[in-house]
Amino acid sequence: MTSARVGDLLALVRDRRPLIHHITNFVTAGDVANITLALGASPVMARAPEEVEEVAAHAGALVLNTGTLTSEVGTVMLRAGRAANARGIPVVLDPVGAGGTAFRTTWVRRLLGELRCACIRGNAGEIAALGGRPGALRGVDAAGAIAGIGDLARRVARETGAVVAATGSEDLVTDGVTSLRIANGHPLLGRITGSGCMATAAVAAASAVEPDPLTATVAGLVWFEVAAERAAERAGGPGTLRAMLADAVAALDRATIEDRARILSA
Amino acid sequence: MTSARVGDLLALVRDRRPLIHHITNFVTAGDVANITLALGASPVMARAPEEVEEVAAHAGALVLNTGTLTSEVGTVMLRAGRAANARGIPVVLDPVGAGGTAFRTTWVRRLLGELRCACIRGNAGEIAALGGRPGALRGVDAAGAIAGIGDLARRVARETGAVVAATGSEDLVTDGVTSLRIANGHPLLGRITGSGCMATAAVAAASAVEPDPLTATVAGLVWFEVAAERAAERAGGPGTLRAMLADAVAALDRATIEDRARILSA
Amino acid sequence: MTSARVGDLLALVRDRRPLIHHITNFVTAGDVANITLALGASPVMARAPEEVEEVAAHAGALVLNTGTLTSEVGTVMLRAGRAANARGIPVVLDPVGAGGTAFRTTWVRRLLGELRCACIRGNAGEIAALGGRPGALRGVDAAGAIAGIGDLARRVARETGAVVAATGSEDLVTDGVTSLRIANGHPLLGRITGSGCMATAAVAAASAVEPDPLTATVAGLVWFEVAAERAAERAGGPGTLRAMLADAVAALDRATIEDRARILSA
Repeated sequence: MTSARVGDLLALVRDRRPLIHHITNFVTAGDVANITLALGASPVMARAPEEVEEVAAHAGALVLNTGTLTSEVGTVMLRAGRAANARGIPVVLDPVGAGGTAFRTTWVRRLLGELRCACIRGNAGEIAALGGRPGALRGVDAAGAIAGIGDLARRVARETGAVVAATGSEDLVTDGVTSLRIANGHPLLGRITGSGCMATAAVAAASAVEPDPLTATVAGLVWFEVAAERAAERAGGPGTLRAMLADAVAALDRATIEDRARILSA
Repeated sequence: MTSARVGDLLALVRDRRPLIHHITNFVTAGDVANITLALGASPVMARAPEEVEEVAAHAGALVLNTGTLTSEVGTVMLRAGRAANARGIPVVLDPVGAGGTAFRTTWVRRLLGELRCACIRGNAGEIAALGGRPGALRGVDAAGAIAGIGDLARRVARETGAVVAATGSEDLVTDGVTSLRIANGHPLLGRITGSGCMATAAVAAASAVEPDPLTATVAGLVWFEVAAERAAERAGGPGTLRAMLADAVAALDRATIEDRARILSA
Repeated sequence: MTSARVGDLLALVRDRRPLIHHITNFVTAGDVANITLALGASPVMARAPEEVEEVAAHAGALVLNTGTLTSEVGTVMLRAGRAANARGIPVVLDPVGAGGTAFRTTWVRRLLGELRCACIRGNAGEIAALGGRPGALRGVDAAGAIAGIGDLARRVARETGAVVAATGSEDLVTDGVTSLRIANGHPLLGRITGSGCMATAAVAAASAVEPDPLTATVAGLVWFEVAAERAAERAGGPGTLRAMLADAVAALDRATIEDRARILSA
């Protein structure tokens, strides 16, 4: 996994402009759509039960994000996810709020039970909850280190067959056997809502052009976090960071990626 | 259709502050509301079935935008649209995703069959789909030239009685007989989500103060696109463009409009 | 009520990072979540009927915002509100659109009838409608002075037991006996959507750390409006103001609050 490969994949996204189908929350949907576009991919947020199978079947990747989940949306996610699974289209799960409430945890487990996910990207608390460690209810943007997160993430990866990314000040990415760390990003990302959702969108864009989920997950996270570093250097705070993130993603080039990517063995 | 008239109409919006009722998607609703306010009009996004007739009946214009459409929202659109039609309040349709899925195309045709629209504003693919040319599913922000779009747009205009605007690097606006081109805007608009939705909001604001739909459509598009040119000159990319669009719309003045408007015969 | 106390409370929010549960509209939810984070609190926007009681019961404060209200969301608000009331968790109501339609006014009255609110924050038209003065339907961002608003606000406060804040170019805050005015803020706030929703979020964050609702309401409004003054000095218009608001809220410090707060007797 080299930074050169990460740069190649971004060029591939910009060349192919894959359609990314997001079934996501209404809080960060606009920011997520804009980051998807800034990467060079093409977002569609369709969620009517009558059309999600048709949309997912034409997508390069499907994102299921459980922020503002309701049971109606969960049912739509299952429908879209099955259509994607049937065609080998990668499904990327962002288990927002898993561990926070019984409803959210139950739905995330159901999605994982009935669907085959290429990648699960969450914060440490969400991944720990999926690994069986009960969490406290916190805001969906709450991060913080969790002891033993590496073992928990590997367990989730082995149980689900998905690559698991627990993101935070340092990210852990694992397929259950091979584990990597990514030491990119910026503390200011923790001060805006949707930074996790946007990172997931980047992983989905990478998954649309790269069949190996470990490679795709690392690539997407590196793109977003290297761009965030650039944006944070110029931002005056979380509000301007939010605006400058899309600028930095759109301006991201191979040289910057190769210069800044910090992909480490875990 | 002179640029002086386009400037006069903007002054009229700022003077009268018309109420614009948007029934729209949750991805770009915040950006659309802010552009409506920046123009000097007053947005309201009410969508409860119990109140949309009352809101639409008091509005200066009603926007129906099919992004993130569900059948429930479609039913609400019909209800609000009938209330607007009964009082002669202009209805502006943004057929997001028409041609992309059977569900979306069917609903847009139903809205057009049951309601009388003053204007339909879409990208070339959406307008072509309404004109009977089947489209490929792409992201809702996907644009690109389509051969014969002029004839397709004129057909849609004649069949629906609406003014039709197919926007892109150059816009075509037609009532089926008279056709105009608008050569304003900026390529960076294609890199943010909601640029079409915001252009539609501007057309609705113009429709609230100008009874001739061809004039109103041209005015709204020129306002938004001239402002976008100004914003793009200062923006560092799509993220800051999104923020600067509302600044440029709020700062738009008669001199800038007259200097920059490029309204051409088609 | 001193500006020193207002500064102390902000430090307390940043120290305790209270969870704020928002049941709110989809137009401004992203901006509201980001302002909540910028204050140092932690937002969660959960709205599934199955989980809102669990979330509200763990929150430091609950916000009920009736923008884009539907009867389903109203029912969810009642459920969450009862859970909050049962545990003494402060409920802050933002009666968006009250007085605008029969549906909205009826629901706001029902929420006030069945729940005990610590604070109601609205614009003058919304508060006047709750005080029995019928309003005209305007955009939800429409403000403007209303004669006799002080008496109307005091009546609403006495009838509901809530502190009432009617915000505008100058704010009136009253518990029905003691009334204060806040002379902070900036006219540009009236040009963006969600400035009221964000002010309400600040009041909720203050309510999570300060049991006296009059003090909490004044503190939250002063935080947001002093930050808005700083942001407006640098913004190029409403779009960049929207981005810079979160920067200014995150950068807000005790010295700025003490220097700028204008809390006056009414």
